[in-house]
Formats: sequence, structure tokens, C-alpha cells
Amino acid sequence: MSVAELVVEETDPYLEEDFVGEMLKQLRALDAYDTYEGWSKAKIVDPLVLTKARKQEIPVIGDPDEITLSRVKAYYNAIATSIEKDCGLMAVPMINITHEGFGRALVMVGKLVVVDKTLRDIHRFGFPSLKKMCEQSDKLIEKAKGLIEKYNEAAND
Amino acid sequence: MSVAELVVEETDPYLEEDFVGEMLKQLRALDAYDTYEGWSKAKIVDPLVLTKARKQEIPVIGDPDEITLSRVKAYYNAIATSIEKDCGLMAVPMINITHEGFGRALVMVGKLVVVDKTLRDIHRFGFPSLKKMCEQSDKLIEKAKGLIEKYNEAAND
Repeated sequence: MSVAELVVEETDPYLEEDFVGEMLKQLRALDAYDTYEGWSKAKIVDPLVLTKARKQEIPVIGDPDEITLSRVKAYYNAIATSIEKDCGLMAVPMINITHEGFGRALVMVGKLVVVDKTLRDIHRFGFPSLKKMCEQSDKLIEKAKGLIEKYNEAAND
Repeated sequence: MSVAELVVEETDPYLEEDFVGEMLKQLRALDAYDTYEGWSKAKIVDPLVLTKARKQEIPVIGDPDEITLSRVKAYYNAIATSIEKDCGLMAVPMINITHEGFGRALVMVGKLVVVDKTLRDIHRFGFPSLKKMCEQSDKLIEKAKGLIEKYNEAAND
């Protein structure tokens, strides 16, 4: 299978999920040159899906390029806005990635760190399928909501 | 006055302050080439003091160089280790600076953000005097301790 071929089908039901909607919005927000103009949803989110075949074509060790970095940013922006929508409090993402592709992603709500992910091999950033992306993201968002409930005063500070 | 001339006196009583000790340790930790070998305390911390005269010699707009960035890192490392010493919990600094010298510095304890500073004009990073550096740092550390007490459960998470 060629990397250029799309792996996300135009009829993938997960394209209608809230999180994918948020992800599309964030990807478009970072698309300064309107590359996505006229593209279908499936085509825009397609590079986020790293099937086994695609993964094999990416070297194990490598530096992330600007496009990959902007996808990682879009992803954590989408996580933050999803949390914000859910809890009604401002959620701020902060990402640190070294040029070797290692780092850390945070989302803060008030004085609370609600998402804290170690990033590695960021040049291979992606999800096995759109379904997996939604499931993993929902888990992060649910966990964040739990923390906001538990430490509500710090989240409101 | 020349920039090369030291402004911190060898007899400055603030050289014996806890925070300056922490700062010296962190500056040395980032000194990979042993530049500071044989230097006095005053000489090592001297570049952190930006008197009015020194500030005037730095352009208002500019990109921070590597040495300035490493001083900013050393500073927030020193803030983090000071907090850690005080509260007995791990304190993790995280700094994001764009190449234009704008950004954000955090210190986290558990799930709590205990220091959150907006950084700007980082190429002019410094303090009017060693005394001022100690006072401002103590204020940050005290505020962090207050938050750790207030949201103790989140800080221990």
C-alpha cells in the first residue's frame, strides 16, 4: 500500500464524532496557507492515522518536521477545547518538544494540570485508526474531567 | 560604565543567601564546558544583574541567545529546587520560549501549577540587583508554598 493512498474512508462513522470535529477545526486553524481548501474531512484527518504499513515506512529514529509538529499541536489544542467545552473553564495547552521529538504535553485548567503526557518519537505521531484516536482522546478528556471535579477549587483558581 | 565590568561586589551579603546558592548550583549544572572553573560567586551571578546602564546597552527588541536562555532555565530550576526543599515534594519546571523571546515558565508540584509566569523580552532577562533577585524569588517561592498548603491534595497527586 502506498503512503499517498488514503486510509480513512469517506464513510468512516467516526468522522462525525465530536472529537474529530474539534480536531478538524484545530487543523484548519493552523493551516495558514489554506492547503485544506476544498478537502474532504477524511482527507484532512487522514495523516493522523498511522496504520502498520504506514508506520513501517517511517524510520524508527528521526526528527519531527514542521507539519508533524503542527499536528501534535492541533491534537492537544483539540483536547484542551474539548475539556473547555465540557467543564466551562478555560483549558490551556502547553507543549515542549525537543528537535529530536521528545517532550511533554500539558493541559492546565486554573492551577490544575489535567493532562500530562510524555511525548516520544513524535515524528511517528498518529493513531492506528480514527476509532482509536477517538477512544484515546475520550479517555484523556474523561480523566481531565475527573480531576477537575476532584480538585474543583484549584481548577477554578 | 562598561558592560564587562562586574557590578556584583565580592562582598555583597546577598551572595550568602540560600537562593543565590541554589542559583549558583543550577548555573554550574548547565555549564557544560566548565567556563566557571575558578570563578568567584560574584563573577558567576554577575550577568543576572541588569543595572540601568547595562539595560541601556541591550536593544529593546532582540532575540535571546543561548547563554541568556540557559540563565532563564537555571533561574526556574533554582526556583523549583527551592520549592522542593521547602515542601519535600518534587517540583518540575517547564519553560516555553519562542525564538523571539516570549513565552511562559511553569513549576508544577504534583498536579498543581505553583508558579506560572509570562515571559517577555527574555533577551533582557535580569534583576536590578542581587537583593532584588532574592526578594522577587522569595516572593515566588512563598506564593508557591501557599498554593501547596491550600491545595495540598492536588500537590500530592
